[in-house]
Amino acid sequence: MKPGRFITLEGGEGTGKSTLAAELEAALVQRGISVERTREPGGTPGAEGIRKLLVEGAADRWQPMSEALLLYAARYDHVERRIKPALTAGKWVISDRFFDSTTAYQGAAGGIDRATLDPLRRLTLADFAPDLTLVLDLDPETGLRRAGSRGDNEQRFEGKGLTFHQRLRQGFLDIASAEPERCAVIDAGQPPADVLDAALGIIQQRLGWPQ
Amino acid sequence: MKPGRFITLEGGEGTGKSTLAAELEAALVQRGISVERTREPGGTPGAEGIRKLLVEGAADRWQPMSEALLLYAARYDHVERRIKPALTAGKWVISDRFFDSTTAYQGAAGGIDRATLDPLRRLTLADFAPDLTLVLDLDPETGLRRAGSRGDNEQRFEGKGLTFHQRLRQGFLDIASAEPERCAVIDAGQPPADVLDAALGIIQQRLGWPQ
Repeated sequence: MKPGRFITLEGGEGTGKSTLAAELEAALVQRGISVERTREPGGTPGAEGIRKLLVEGAADRWQPMSEALLLYAARYDHVERRIKPALTAGKWVISDRFFDSTTAYQGAAGGIDRATLDPLRRLTLADFAPDLTLVLDLDPETGLRRAGSRGDNEQRFEGKGLTFHQRLRQGFLDIASAEPERCAVIDAGQPPADVLDAALGIIQQRLGWPQ
Repeated sequence: MKPGRFITLEGGEGTGKSTLAAELEAALVQRGISVERTREPGGTPGAEGIRKLLVEGAADRWQPMSEALLLYAARYDHVERRIKPALTAGKWVISDRFFDSTTAYQGAAGGIDRATLDPLRRLTLADFAPDLTLVLDLDPETGLRRAGSRGDNEQRFEGKGLTFHQRLRQGFLDIASAEPERCAVIDAGQPPADVLDAALGIIQQRLGWPQ
């Protein structure tokens, strides 16, 4: 069995990651690919329990270092119990957020330096990484307006203010520019159909479709 | 203000840590010492939320690496928001469990090697450590019998079987023997009054009483 491919979608609040994940799943299934669509924080029963601690409550409920450790606890469970088994079974995994979100939220925006976050990643995941990461880029004011209209109770990070979200956006762009072979930036201000076309074009070019 | 001292109590299930912590608090207060008594996992509202994820549910709910990351997430919150402020205010802090429990439960008994756990500790806490650690040593069969009679719902680790608890006991003894200046082993099979006397003797000898 040929192992599957691991694609992650990254970006700030309201950039359209969840929408794109669902559309990508449909497009890949149409091409005969077996897809496992998931999200972080979460993706397994244990990790979804951790998600509740992270995304609900007051903006200062956790310091960034506690968040980073909680996120990697959830991520370890998600990778070991869902992502790796799906890839081994030949599925393509699409995850709405993965480790770049920790690097951007808790690192670039939250203030933890890479000298802490990078070793934490290696201790938890060794060299496991996505085959392709699509960074959805959007100005934070537009993104926060879109996200606010969702009206769910997972708004802890949305409450952190515009400066946080500007640092966050730059954090994602910096990751993409540091790892151009793994990452591609997509303008998330385009109409959703164009975002999907851009994503499918990058997937075809970088990963190719199974024969 | 002279900073306080940080004393941790360690050992397996049913070794009498909580009882000793309460008795030590009373004995220290009698000597005019201001005491902050706490426990892990927990000790702050955030960390107590993480505790619930850790100590309830099926024995295989989490893999040891997820546990270690959850424990350090809770510990960071506990250290930064409660332990360090109390020490700075001159209080003596007594914690029922601290990082040695992670080294013993997730490491010696759970199978994560020190090459993973030690860097995780340094990333989270730098060189912050207890001034004195009292390891309560007891054969696991007696300890599990004592712990089982508590009848609470925090029995996830008690359900892990005798071999786990034997490795756990040896794990704590190994820590004490590797760090004899920080740690002291107390025979927890003695009557509680004798355990308390032993603990007070060690505290007097190692830390001295404030003048």
